[in-house]
Amino acid sequence: MTQSIAFLGLGAMGWRMAAHLPKAFSDVRVWNRTFSKAEAHALQFGTQASSIENAVQADIIFSCLPTSAEVEALIATYPPKAGSIWVDCTSGEPTSAQRVSAKLAENNVHFLDAPVSGQTIGAEKGILTVMVGGDVVALERARSAIEPFAGLIEHVGGSGAGFAVKAVNNMLLAVNLWSVAEGFSALKAHGVNLESALTCINASSGRSLASENTFPQRVLNREFPLTFALNLLAKDTGIAIDLAHSAKLPSPLLALTQSLYRAASNSLPEDSDFSAVVKLLESWTGQVLEV
Amino acid sequence: MTQSIAFLGLGAMGWRMAAHLPKAFSDVRVWNRTFSKAEAHALQFGTQASSIENAVQADIIFSCLPTSAEVEALIATYPPKAGSIWVDCTSGEPTSAQRVSAKLAENNVHFLDAPVSGQTIGAEKGILTVMVGGDVVALERARSAIEPFAGLIEHVGGSGAGFAVKAVNNMLLAVNLWSVAEGFSALKAHGVNLESALTCINASSGRSLASENTFPQRVLNREFPLTFALNLLAKDTGIAIDLAHSAKLPSPLLALTQSLYRAASNSLPEDSDFSAVVKLLESWTGQVLEV
Amino acid sequence: MTQSIAFLGLGAMGWRMAAHLPKAFSDVRVWNRTFSKAEAHALQFGTQASSIENAVQADIIFSCLPTSAEVEALIATYPPKAGSIWVDCTSGEPTSAQRVSAKLAENNVHFLDAPVSGQTIGAEKGILTVMVGGDVVALERARSAIEPFAGLIEHVGGSGAGFAVKAVNNMLLAVNLWSVAEGFSALKAHGVNLESALTCINASSGRSLASENTFPQRVLNREFPLTFALNLLAKDTGIAIDLAHSAKLPSPLLALTQSLYRAASNSLPEDSDFSAVVKLLESWTGQVLEV
Amino acid sequence: MTQSIAFLGLGAMGWRMAAHLPKAFSDVRVWNRTFSKAEAHALQFGTQASSIENAVQADIIFSCLPTSAEVEALIATYPPKAGSIWVDCTSGEPTSAQRVSAKLAENNVHFLDAPVSGQTIGAEKGILTVMVGGDVVALERARSAIEPFAGLIEHVGGSGAGFAVKAVNNMLLAVNLWSVAEGFSALKAHGVNLESALTCINASSGRSLASENTFPQRVLNREFPLTFALNLLAKDTGIAIDLAHSAKLPSPLLALTQSLYRAASNSLPEDSDFSAVVKLLESWTGQVLEV
Repeated sequence: MTQSIAFLGLGAMGWRMAAHLPKAFSDVRVWNRTFSKAEAHALQFGTQASSIENAVQADIIFSCLPTSAEVEALIATYPPKAGSIWVDCTSGEPTSAQRVSAKLAENNVHFLDAPVSGQTIGAEKGILTVMVGGDVVALERARSAIEPFAGLIEHVGGSGAGFAVKAVNNMLLAVNLWSVAEGFSALKAHGVNLESALTCINASSGRSLASENTFPQRVLNREFPLTFALNLLAKDTGIAIDLAHSAKLPSPLLALTQSLYRAASNSLPEDSDFSAVVKLLESWTGQVLEV
Repeated sequence: MTQSIAFLGLGAMGWRMAAHLPKAFSDVRVWNRTFSKAEAHALQFGTQASSIENAVQADIIFSCLPTSAEVEALIATYPPKAGSIWVDCTSGEPTSAQRVSAKLAENNVHFLDAPVSGQTIGAEKGILTVMVGGDVVALERARSAIEPFAGLIEHVGGSGAGFAVKAVNNMLLAVNLWSVAEGFSALKAHGVNLESALTCINASSGRSLASENTFPQRVLNREFPLTFALNLLAKDTGIAIDLAHSAKLPSPLLALTQSLYRAASNSLPEDSDFSAVVKLLESWTGQVLEV
Repeated sequence: MTQSIAFLGLGAMGWRMAAHLPKAFSDVRVWNRTFSKAEAHALQFGTQASSIENAVQADIIFSCLPTSAEVEALIATYPPKAGSIWVDCTSGEPTSAQRVSAKLAENNVHFLDAPVSGQTIGAEKGILTVMVGGDVVALERARSAIEPFAGLIEHVGGSGAGFAVKAVNNMLLAVNLWSVAEGFSALKAHGVNLESALTCINASSGRSLASENTFPQRVLNREFPLTFALNLLAKDTGIAIDLAHSAKLPSPLLALTQSLYRAASNSLPEDSDFSAVVKLLESWTGQVLEV
Repeated sequence: MTQSIAFLGLGAMGWRMAAHLPKAFSDVRVWNRTFSKAEAHALQFGTQASSIENAVQADIIFSCLPTSAEVEALIATYPPKAGSIWVDCTSGEPTSAQRVSAKLAENNVHFLDAPVSGQTIGAEKGILTVMVGGDVVALERARSAIEPFAGLIEHVGGSGAGFAVKAVNNMLLAVNLWSVAEGFSALKAHGVNLESALTCINASSGRSLASENTFPQRVLNREFPLTFALNLLAKDTGIAIDLAHSAKLPSPLLALTQSLYRAASNSLPEDSDFSAVVKLLESWTGQVLEV
């Protein structure tokens, strides 16, 4: 049987993810709020620009939107058909996934929270990490539709678990980057060669993706390219803290990090890349992190 | 001209580092406070167990001791001969390096702070990262003696810079590990599969050496093997904070981390591995991090 | 017209608050889950032990329960009569107040969130501070019923505002107490006379109710009398943090405090007084705060 | 026997403190770096403008300077005469007190660290709190010279103890003020009436001098009058943290506060009053704390 696929939300990630689907499926419907993007996608990748009403009639529906609020609003207005599977690749909220999942189950629709990691380059190459929460049988049914853009598909638990893991992952990125910035501010103030120091640390136990990639490629070169918005990472740190908070767990380091990113997001220009968070620290220290 | 080499301090790291020296030098003197260790080293690796008085007459003297206090005490009592180079591989204090360096320079001795990273496995294989502060010409003269146990030798700045980079590296390890523990406590409380979550994060932007190595190999398996003592890492976080503090830099995340490791070091058994720091968090959350 | 009054919840606070009502009202119904407490109250203070069904038929109903969850459950099962006013003296959640208030308004019942401060001694003397959120006209109608146990009745805003102010007040108590404990740990470690230091600080700019009252009367004398449970204060700090979090405000100091109290609440005996939080700090420092 | 008194440093505090001395002593010498201030003081209060060389020949010498560095420099250049007592009212560093005290003792001079609290109004009225570290017999000999400007003179321990208590006091002021600001930001974001909220809290357990005095008199009225410089309070928080740090005590809340004040001091105008620290928070939250 031929499956129909829909992809809702053609932002920086969604655009690239949906581009891989026509390799495996003939009926790939794409929709975007600014509809001209859907038409451009169809032209470039052989998908079909589709109305939202038509898109939600597909067998498997992907969504990749800024937050869970947009996903919930869309589903409330345009419910998917019975028997379909909704795969939400948004970096969303676990409690939202549980709420939506329970609601859709009443109409025999499966909801999988399936956020992705790997940034635009990973989406382009089709090697994203997909962390999936929800029904494992539904995941098996949807797997062939996820595979075109995935390097790793991992079932991590029940509904909301995918969002939870993504939030924690992004929180760790946030912690690791900020702490590198604090550490290198101190080194700079003491006249240490920052490039040599980074070489050492990246060959040592303090290394992280933030020190190996983010810090040299976005911060030290002062480029701060906007590929992942600071306000979205600030939101993700909030989701991670909600996890700790709702379980009554103390989480001092993550809570502090959340405050720092919230402060940065509230005080830096709205279109800042997440790496620009270091500018808040620089305004306190006077140490500009450049080489 | 044949150089004589001495190695002072045959702990878990020093023992393995000194073992590589006879490959390149014929006169390798080893000394240890518990002298039988020096004799055993000589027997096993072809070094010479030497009195401290004789050791400090070598052309190049390595030290690898718990803290700068021990190094300073040793140098004060047994000063090296004029023209020699003292290479201190201790994870020491930058201010101590500057003090000792200035003092030894009066007697025409160079002092290099040259802490290492790579743990016992890296020492065993002779692939340690060596981050060096001090005179660059002295480093060139000492380089052939360092190479046998090094995978990377990096000059990072003036006297104390090597210790500074090491302290920041270890602080980052401390931050990264603790934040992984907080994040995974939240995931566990929400019923997420920890192994799958770790697989995702280690394929994503939140990864670090702490998540890839320390957390699965020491924590999740509940082994906490003692190869790097918690109280030494707590000390290192204190050195890192001193760097920020003496430069009047705010450093909220590192300062909090320092307090957490200090609290753990003060309340856990004295012979705890650094990874056992998670037990302090576990006592607050009731979430045991195991799979 | 004679008003009937009910008081639900005869804990340490409610018992004493309800005791003042017969001075001003002839029909005062008291109810408690453990009903014998209601009967004892009636015997001692001239109130009437009443069934819950009868109590919620009063014109003005007070509740003073552990958390908003108990209040919401009670109201759902035993709705008050139309035209009545429900005055909730619980240290509750602002969002709960808004939810309950909107629900009760459908049946022409006013809900006032009216938490109190002043501890058991203030309740005993009838001089509590009552911070009120909700309709100001309803407050005027209920004022004469609140006055018997109040020293100050202050309208602070719309529904939930009273709970919000109480949560922030308790959070400030939490911050002030913990910081006194940290500060005095450092003084003790340096051999300073703690009593003299406290005399100085309480005559200086660092003083707070925590330093003037809590610290000498509960901590330094090692009595930790259970009059306000640590787990309830930990809950209150969580409510305060929710306020900041839902408004997307960074709040680093309060967030850290919340984690510290949550850690203490999770690791100390369940019946600990809030002042026993210092024992968590003492387990990290080895400095026992006593004179 | 008539005692001669000197007062070095006629800043906002010293000017007012020295003004009380002629009531009790006939020989009161005042000195200030900008000498015209000493001359004006003499004219106004009947003291004698004196050279520094002459001033340090007094029997009792007070100093009230910005930091311990200025005091140490002064003493090194102009040592006091044998048998005299040096009473340092600076908010200084305990380690400096110990160093200077030991040095002066060699020449039979007593050094008392005797910082004061009470701000300019307390100095004006002569009711300052004086917290004294050092030899108790020397304090008794100097007491009559301190009394004219003191409301409370308290011996708190050995050399440095006075500075330690002052640093902790100021740290507590710093914590209490910042936490009030965070709490009221949350209340404002939720539409709570700030004046009513403050009335409640100041009648409740969350109150502190910061909430009763600093917040309404400096912040909510947006006046931020410069009577105690932010950079000096930031320095004092650093002294308090040094106390914890040198004793290897974790001190998470104080360490975070120190970073916040350091960040504020580094990023706000140099002549900011300490209360202006809230402006840093406001830049993160968008909530201006005014009524």
